[in-house]
Amino acid sequence: MACFCNNYLYLFRQIHHSIPTFIASPSRAFPSCLTTTFRVCNAQSWSTKPNPRSMSESVSASATSTGTFTWDDVVWSSDPETISDDPSDLNGYFEKIKICNRGADMRFEFIPFVIEDQIVGFIHKGFAEHLRKFQYVFEFLPDNGSRGARVTLNSSLKTPEDRTRALGEVVKSLGEQLIPGIRNELYPVTSSFGARAFFSLERAAAPYFGIKAYGVHMNGYVEKGGQKYLWIGKRSRAKATYPGMLDHLVAGGLPHGIACGENMVKECEEEAGIPRSISSSAIPVGAVSYMDIDGYRYKRDVLFCYDLKLPESFIPKNEDGEVESFKLIPVTHVANVIRRTYLFKPNCCLVIIDFLFRHGYILPECFGYLDLLQSLRSGDCSQVHP
Amino acid sequence: MACFCNNYLYLFRQIHHSIPTFIASPSRAFPSCLTTTFRVCNAQSWSTKPNPRSMSESVSASATSTGTFTWDDVVWSSDPETISDDPSDLNGYFEKIKICNRGADMRFEFIPFVIEDQIVGFIHKGFAEHLRKFQYVFEFLPDNGSRGARVTLNSSLKTPEDRTRALGEVVKSLGEQLIPGIRNELYPVTSSFGARAFFSLERAAAPYFGIKAYGVHMNGYVEKGGQKYLWIGKRSRAKATYPGMLDHLVAGGLPHGIACGENMVKECEEEAGIPRSISSSAIPVGAVSYMDIDGYRYKRDVLFCYDLKLPESFIPKNEDGEVESFKLIPVTHVANVIRRTYLFKPNCCLVIIDFLFRHGYILPECFGYLDLLQSLRSGDCSQVHP
Repeated sequence: MACFCNNYLYLFRQIHHSIPTFIASPSRAFPSCLTTTFRVCNAQSWSTKPNPRSMSESVSASATSTGTFTWDDVVWSSDPETISDDPSDLNGYFEKIKICNRGADMRFEFIPFVIEDQIVGFIHKGFAEHLRKFQYVFEFLPDNGSRGARVTLNSSLKTPEDRTRALGEVVKSLGEQLIPGIRNELYPVTSSFGARAFFSLERAAAPYFGIKAYGVHMNGYVEKGGQKYLWIGKRSRAKATYPGMLDHLVAGGLPHGIACGENMVKECEEEAGIPRSISSSAIPVGAVSYMDIDGYRYKRDVLFCYDLKLPESFIPKNEDGEVESFKLIPVTHVANVIRRTYLFKPNCCLVIIDFLFRHGYILPECFGYLDLLQSLRSGDCSQVHP
Repeated sequence: MACFCNNYLYLFRQIHHSIPTFIASPSRAFPSCLTTTFRVCNAQSWSTKPNPRSMSESVSASATSTGTFTWDDVVWSSDPETISDDPSDLNGYFEKIKICNRGADMRFEFIPFVIEDQIVGFIHKGFAEHLRKFQYVFEFLPDNGSRGARVTLNSSLKTPEDRTRALGEVVKSLGEQLIPGIRNELYPVTSSFGARAFFSLERAAAPYFGIKAYGVHMNGYVEKGGQKYLWIGKRSRAKATYPGMLDHLVAGGLPHGIACGENMVKECEEEAGIPRSISSSAIPVGAVSYMDIDGYRYKRDVLFCYDLKLPESFIPKNEDGEVESFKLIPVTHVANVIRRTYLFKPNCCLVIIDFLFRHGYILPECFGYLDLLQSLRSGDCSQVHP
């Protein structure tokens, strides 16, 4: 058994070393450079010990790279007994936070996007070149000695409606090649959360303009026999981003004009079939944040975290086709999946690590406790300054 | 009733404007400049509405300045119906965080205290002058162009034991006038939490050397009838610091050589008579931090936070004489006390605000949510770098 464990851990290392490739391409769940295989077990439930994996039972990297790993693989990788690693070693968590916070040293490649003297985003100098042709929309202010170069909107665009329309046309004109995955979903552009919106922008374009984006993520859990379990979703393989990967029970972006709590209730209904009578008990418990630079994209995301304690009898049911299936997994096992694998959509890891902290699954005695806690809010949470 | 409310709020403002005086002198619970009075009610329980206060029922500022306010005063100030303010206004919380994070603009008055090339603290230039006479203990390294001025230990002091002994003699020699409140309790001096101790230092001296100090604070709560209640302590009036003020059920510094969890169990027994069979269920839920400069003192504190859900039947009992009495208060009322008054020992406010976040008592819809959340860890939580 030991050699299987080592082989499996080796796989995780392999995946780890290839992360930038893996994450940079959201359509792939695993890096294409991954040529090793990983073993599948036939364990059917959390109460039984997973069977040892044989060399013949394997899934090719190409299968895993499209997110077609199975719940059995998740079960196997989560079990405390399959791999003899140290749960108090926080390195596996740090790695996941790192994935969401890449490219800090590339910040100098971006210039501030300013509206009414407030910085609302950051635009890559290369991407800015594509915007120069839209002279009726953008103004490029040169470095004047006291202030560096900036991009702003043409002064003729005064109202939020005018700006929203003009930017909408720009995004459409730039096309799918430059800004892939258009969703026709508008995000408010503000200097800080809760401030008035200067205009609204297509969700897929937000990182190209370095706009702060907000989301709501919910840990749905069940308590039975003194143990806590998390409901985990597996994303539909048809999804444009992170197909087939593990996800929260409920999560979604925060569009323009809807409050966090109301959005959470709406997403609960759509994503997991949770009626308002139950979802209204969801508790806001804080937020995590990250800053990720990848090519032209500068993600500055804040995720509002919610906990919802569900009745034992509740079975989630996806209503919008975005989730393939759900599984109830002991929290200690979920922690192992986070630490050991890259099966979760990356930003979910932050919200689950936050849950692990708040529910006492990570101890102050573990080396790195304070650093890990602090790193959950590596992004800009400021509401007053941009 | 309205005029009483306004009068009371005015008092809070008065207190607020005098905070630096109030906090700078730990032996006073209220600022000496406070000349107004505040009214006392006769409400005996949380289930009854507090009586309106009459002008004749008042406590003088001198009585409140020694922490001799009563539980009745706390009841009155906590009641949602006595003062018609807005619970979603977070300003009262921000004020309490500000009290723990003063003097950031005075950092330039301090020079790094360096051991084995690691910054372990910061010493005020004025205080450093008092150390110059101890030539066999300290070395003063001048600004050499590439590195600024620093204080280090004499190279003859190689072992932790030698350093601890030498520093102990210095602290004793400087005397109570310069370093008041000697406790004969040693704190480890490290570059970061969990790293090996370079030496140990008298607890009262830690802020004069800008040493990071760690503590454990526990929110002990009860759930009944779907509502959460917090057990709040009132500090003994004989305490050297913050006499008579409100406090957590259990809290204490983290001395050398004891793990957080073990220290928590020990403090539970001593401070609230909570047996290990109950206290072992306390859950570590994160940490808060602050940095406070006050004259020669540079506090860099990290408090590890714990939650303990107590049985309804449990009644705390102080064993070490440090607590005058305890009271079980609805969490929503505790939130009001934090927002409206300065009756709590300041750093307890941070830990309780963290509790309010994690238990859903502060909503993302409140303006300033993210800033407030972020400000709970304004201190240096880093474990790798100083």
